Amino acid sequence: MQPLSGYGVSKVLDSTHPNYKKDDLVWGLTSWEEYSLIQSPQHLIKILDTNVPLSYYTGILGMPGLTAYGGLYELCSPKKGEYVYVSAASGAVGQLVGQFAKLVGCYVVGSAGSKEKVNLLKNKFGFDDAFNYKKEPDLDAALKRCFPEGIDIYFENVGGKMLDAVLLNMRIHGRIAVCGMISQYNLEKPEGVHNLMQVVGKRIRMEGFLAGDFYHQYPKFLELVMPAIKEGKLVYVEDIAEGLEKAPSALVGIFTGQNVGKQLVVVAPE
Amino acid sequence: MQPLSGYGVSKVLDSTHPNYKKDDLVWGLTSWEEYSLIQSPQHLIKILDTNVPLSYYTGILGMPGLTAYGGLYELCSPKKGEYVYVSAASGAVGQLVGQFAKLVGCYVVGSAGSKEKVNLLKNKFGFDDAFNYKKEPDLDAALKRCFPEGIDIYFENVGGKMLDAVLLNMRIHGRIAVCGMISQYNLEKPEGVHNLMQVVGKRIRMEGFLAGDFYHQYPKFLELVMPAIKEGKLVYVEDIAEGLEKAPSALVGIFTGQNVGKQLVVVAPE
Repeated sequence: MQPLSGYGVSKVLDSTHPNYKKDDLVWGLTSWEEYSLIQSPQHLIKILDTNVPLSYYTGILGMPGLTAYGGLYELCSPKKGEYVYVSAASGAVGQLVGQFAKLVGCYVVGSAGSKEKVNLLKNKFGFDDAFNYKKEPDLDAALKRCFPEGIDIYFENVGGKMLDAVLLNMRIHGRIAVCGMISQYNLEKPEGVHNLMQVVGKRIRMEGFLAGDFYHQYPKFLELVMPAIKEGKLVYVEDIAEGLEKAPSALVGIFTGQNVGKQLVVVAPE
Repeated sequence: MQPLSGYGVSKVLDSTHPNYKKDDLVWGLTSWEEYSLIQSPQHLIKILDTNVPLSYYTGILGMPGLTAYGGLYELCSPKKGEYVYVSAASGAVGQLVGQFAKLVGCYVVGSAGSKEKVNLLKNKFGFDDAFNYKKEPDLDAALKRCFPEGIDIYFENVGGKMLDAVLLNMRIHGRIAVCGMISQYNLEKPEGVHNLMQVVGKRIRMEGFLAGDFYHQYPKFLELVMPAIKEGKLVYVEDIAEGLEKAPSALVGIFTGQNVGKQLVVVAPE
């Protein structure tokens, strides 16, 4: 049986590939196991700067960071003063999207599924506003309250009813970066989205993407993010589970809203 | 009461605007009436070339032409050999989208709601293939039959179930220009679209637009289309109703599938 694949940080023990030698550190697509044989290193990126916690390369400097960067900057070109909404905002990607948008001077609102997460967004991640979607009987009304002028950019992690409410609140020439639709993954039939007609009159652009599409822009991304981390302009929260045996319950926790910040599994401390 | 507005061809009878004088011909947003007072000429374009039927400026050289051009060329950048699907393909815009895509060397399939329209698409407008969506119990299967390799570009006129089936058949980095969703306009609640998750993995870009967004590109558009018309490379079909009193039934006919080609109402022959 193939082991489950996932993104991780690894140390090279041995390599016959000209670009990799013993003790190199890499991040990228590896597996849920202690030792991996990597036969397709195109999904690996070498770690050059170790003056930050290595775990960052599973998050802010790894796939979630590149995802937030690519979806927000490359697809949506945020401009100072624009209104940005992020759903699943306390997650690994969402927390970064909001902070990256603040770096450009946007007004940023996030939603999450608990009071604790909402506080984190407002008090730790510097979002301008945040709300608990589980406490909002009317998502359209919640968005109208948070965005009386409408939304220019929506970073979509959720799908379904949330997307329907967002479409009603988008502004003309709004952009939607579709990163995922976590509310839909485990449904037998995905919910219907009813308000797509908004796309026409408002000339909305909706675009899906994968972090892998932006691998070639990793150096450009590091140039932006590394100084911001070192100057303390970016905050990053991890939820660490110790031991590979904790991985399955940690994965389930993502879908039930247990984790706060990037869910991480430490397989070996070094 | 305000008269209904619509796109038409008109002759200037009198003008105090510096750009317009008596006997100038214009096309653009006027009204359902014999004589109109136009106070906002930013929605008018002057007709310079009268070596084609004037009615063309309500269609292939007017709003539908600019709509087909903008949605297909500006939003979707079709390349030779790409697979293009057009719904409501025998309509004013659809017939042009298909032909414009053929000019670039795409493989083009259209759908329409009658055998007569399907024949027109294949035999008159030069579509590579066409089908009657009303005779297809399974739209997904129909699209798989017509596009075994999948769809690169979808010119969306219909919405609802058709969009859902198209999403399943889009290729990676596919583009959807959303021109309209005629199947949804008269529903109390629009149908749900269930397959939007396809947008992520396939990195689909979906974008709404209005012809008015491309007014500034009208000269560029004319340069492309006028020679193709004069060389007989473009075919254009009109459905002409005589007299303003026929306008209401002609409008209803669009929604019930009666018209073939651009529905036109002649208010005055010259």
